[in-house]
Amino acid sequence: VAKRLERFKTTIFTQMSSLAIKHGAINLGQGFPNFDGPEFVKEAAIQAIRDGKNQYARGYGVPEFNSAIAGRFKKDTGLVVDPEKEVTVTSGCTEAIAATMLGLINPGDEVILFAPFYDSYEATLSMAGAKIKCITLRPPDFAVPINELTSAISKNTRAILINTPHNPTGKMFTRDELNTIASLCIENDVLVFTDEVYDKLAFEMDHISMASLPGMYERTVTMNSLGKTFSLTGWKIGWAIAPPHLTWGVRQAHAFLTFATSTPMQWAASVALRAPDSYYVELKRDYMAKKAILVEGLKAVGFKVFPSSGTYFVVVDHTPFGLENDIAFCEYLIKEVGVVAIPTSVFYLNPEDGKNLVRFTFCKDEETLRTAVERMKEKL
Amino acid sequence: VAKRLERFKTTIFTQMSSLAIKHGAINLGQGFPNFDGPEFVKEAAIQAIRDGKNQYARGYGVPEFNSAIAGRFKKDTGLVVDPEKEVTVTSGCTEAIAATMLGLINPGDEVILFAPFYDSYEATLSMAGAKIKCITLRPPDFAVPINELTSAISKNTRAILINTPHNPTGKMFTRDELNTIASLCIENDVLVFTDEVYDKLAFEMDHISMASLPGMYERTVTMNSLGKTFSLTGWKIGWAIAPPHLTWGVRQAHAFLTFATSTPMQWAASVALRAPDSYYVELKRDYMAKKAILVEGLKAVGFKVFPSSGTYFVVVDHTPFGLENDIAFCEYLIKEVGVVAIPTSVFYLNPEDGKNLVRFTFCKDEETLRTAVERMKEKL
Ligand SMILES: CSCCC(=O)C(=O)O
Ligand SMILES: CSCCC(=O)C(=O)O
Repeated sequence: VAKRLERFKTTIFTQMSSLAIKHGAINLGQGFPNFDGPEFVKEAAIQAIRDGKNQYARGYGVPEFNSAIAGRFKKDTGLVVDPEKEVTVTSGCTEAIAATMLGLINPGDEVILFAPFYDSYEATLSMAGAKIKCITLRPPDFAVPINELTSAISKNTRAILINTPHNPTGKMFTRDELNTIASLCIENDVLVFTDEVYDKLAFEMDHISMASLPGMYERTVTMNSLGKTFSLTGWKIGWAIAPPHLTWGVRQAHAFLTFATSTPMQWAASVALRAPDSYYVELKRDYMAKKAILVEGLKAVGFKVFPSSGTYFVVVDHTPFGLENDIAFCEYLIKEVGVVAIPTSVFYLNPEDGKNLVRFTFCKDEETLRTAVERMKEKL
Repeated sequence: VAKRLERFKTTIFTQMSSLAIKHGAINLGQGFPNFDGPEFVKEAAIQAIRDGKNQYARGYGVPEFNSAIAGRFKKDTGLVVDPEKEVTVTSGCTEAIAATMLGLINPGDEVILFAPFYDSYEATLSMAGAKIKCITLRPPDFAVPINELTSAISKNTRAILINTPHNPTGKMFTRDELNTIASLCIENDVLVFTDEVYDKLAFEMDHISMASLPGMYERTVTMNSLGKTFSLTGWKIGWAIAPPHLTWGVRQAHAFLTFATSTPMQWAASVALRAPDSYYVELKRDYMAKKAILVEGLKAVGFKVFPSSGTYFVVVDHTPFGLENDIAFCEYLIKEVGVVAIPTSVFYLNPEDGKNLVRFTFCKDEETLRTAVERMKEKL
C-alpha cells in the first residue's frame, strides 16, 4: 500500500456493518436507512433504464441534472449558478470530496479540519499531500473555538473544511460561527469546502449554506448528494457547486477519478431534486419522530445524550457503563447487547479525544429503533 | 487547479462528444454504443431497484457480485481467486485505475506506460506523484520494442501498465510479448497493472490475461468493467482483481475515492456476468460485421487503416488528405464532413508522435457506420 494511505484502517463503516451482519445485531452504525427511497424516484430510474439512457453521461453531468442541481441550489440559497460551468456531478459526495482535494490542494498546503470528522476528509487530504491542522469541537455543544481557529490560520492555509449539519455530532454551524469563519477566510484569502449532505435533515434550526454568506460564494465549494435526502444511499449520486475557477480543478480530478457518473441514476436524480416541498416536510416529520424515539430511549437507558440539531445521528457519552473506551464499548454493545454503534475515536487525529463518545443513527424504522432501545435497556 | 493536474486539458472524449452534439456530426469518437444493453441485464437492474436494493453496498462490493467476478475470472483465466479478499468493485474501470495508482504507487516510483495510452493513466500517475517512463508503440503493428522496454526498467521501477486489447490502436499483446514482459517483471520485481476492459472484443486472436502467466498473478492487478462487454458504458461498474497484499492498497484508495459503487447496478452486473457463452459469441459476431463495414469503408475513402485485432476502435493515417495534423484533421472532419473521430496526439507524452493518426470507433449500428462512410466518401 502506498505511504499516503498506510496509516488508515478499513473504514469503520465497513468494519461495523460487517460485524452487524456477523452477529445479527441491529445496525445503528453506518448511516443508511433500512427503509426504501420514494417510489417516484425509483420509477424515474426504471424509466431511464428502459428508455436506453445507459451510455456514458457527459463527464461533468447529464445536462438536465446539472440544471436540477442549480435549481435546487437557487431555491435553497438564493444563489444563481451556471449549471454548465459551476456544477459537477460526482459518484457520491465522497467522490466530490476526493475531487475537491485532489483538484485544488497542492502538497504542503494547509487545510483546517474540525474534529470529529468523516474519515475520508483526512484520507483524501493525505492523498493530496496537504498538511492538516485539526481543531476539536468539544461536547456538550461542539461549538467552534474561535480563538483556536484564528491562530490555526497561517499564510499557507489554503482551505477550511466544514460539514454542517455535522457528522457525527449532529451539530449545526450557527450563523455567528459561519460569519466568523467567513470573515477569517476573506481576510486571509482562504477557501471553504463545505459538505452539506445532511442539509435537509435540519431539525432544531435552519440550515445555512456557507456559500450564501456575503463574499463567500466565490471561494466556496459546496458538496451535497442525493442519498441522505432521498433514502437512496446506494445510488452514489453527488455533486459539487463552485465558481468556474474552482470548478475547473474539481472537474479535472473528477475526469480522471471516475470520468462520469451513472447515467440512468442521474436522470432519476433530476426528478428527485424537483420534488415538491411537501416531500421535505414529510421527511423531516418522519425523522423527528424517529429521533424522539432514539433520543428518549438512549436517555432512559442511562446515556448522557448530546443535543443533535441535524443529521440522522446522535452522539452519546458511554462512560456510565464503565467500559474503558469507545471501541471496547462498541464491541460489548455488538456482542452482548446486539446493537451496533460507531466509535468516534476514528474521527479524530488524536483518538483519545473520542474515547468517551459513540454515535448512533436513527435512520431506521421506528420498530427497529424501539427494539434496539429495548435491548439496551435489558442488557446494558 | 492543483499542480498535479495543471498540464491536463478537458478530456478529449468530453471535447469531442460536445462538438459532435454541437455540429450534429456522427460520433465515431468516444467509445459508447448507440444501441442499448441487453434486456436481461436492464431487467435485472429494474428488479434490484424494485426490490429495495438501494442502500450503500459493502465498500468493496456486493458479495454476490464479487463472486460473479471471481467466477468469470476463473472461466476466463483458470485462476481461482477469493472474492472476499482479491476482488474490489469500483465505479468503472477508470476508478479502478485511479485506486490502483493512488493505492499502490508512491511519489518517485517509476511506472512504465506504453503510448498511445488512455489519458487517465497519465493523470492518475501524476496524482500519485509517479515518474512516468513512456515507450511508444509504432505503426503499422504497434509491437512492443523489447530493447527499449528492457532499458527503461531501473531499480526504481514499480510497475508496468498494459492495456490489452489496446485503446486506441486495437493492438493485442501477443503471448511472446506478454511472456517477455512477465520475465522482466519477475526478474526486476515489478508489478503489472493491466486494463482489460476490451477482453471480450478480441477478434483476430485470443485475449491473454497477464495474470494467467506463470508467476504473474501475485504481482498483477487486473482491471475490467461491465460497460464495453454489455453495451452499458453509462452504468460505471468496474473492478480490480489482485492478490490480497495488492488488493489492500486498491481498497484503501477506493474507500476514500468513492467508498462504494451503485448497489442496484451491482446486482444487475452479477446477472450480466453469468450470461451464457452464446451472449459473447453473438456480441463478437455483431461487432465483426460492424468492423468490416467501417474498415472497408475507411479503406475505400482512402485512409491507410492499421490492423486492429481487438477493441471497437481502429486507427488510421489521415495524411493522404493533406491536413497538417490529427487535430486539424478532426476539426475538418467534424465541420466539413459531419463525422467525429478522436485525434491521438493526446495519448502520447510527445504529441508529435500521434500527429498522423486518428481513431474511429465502430460501436454504432450498421446504418450509422454506413452513413459516416458515405459522408467521408463524398466530402473528403
Ligand atoms: C460511507 S458511510 C458515509 C457516511 C455515513 O453514512 C456514515 O457516517 O455512517
Ligand atoms: C471516458 S471514455 C472511456 C474510454 C472510451 O470509451 C474511449 O476511449 O472512447
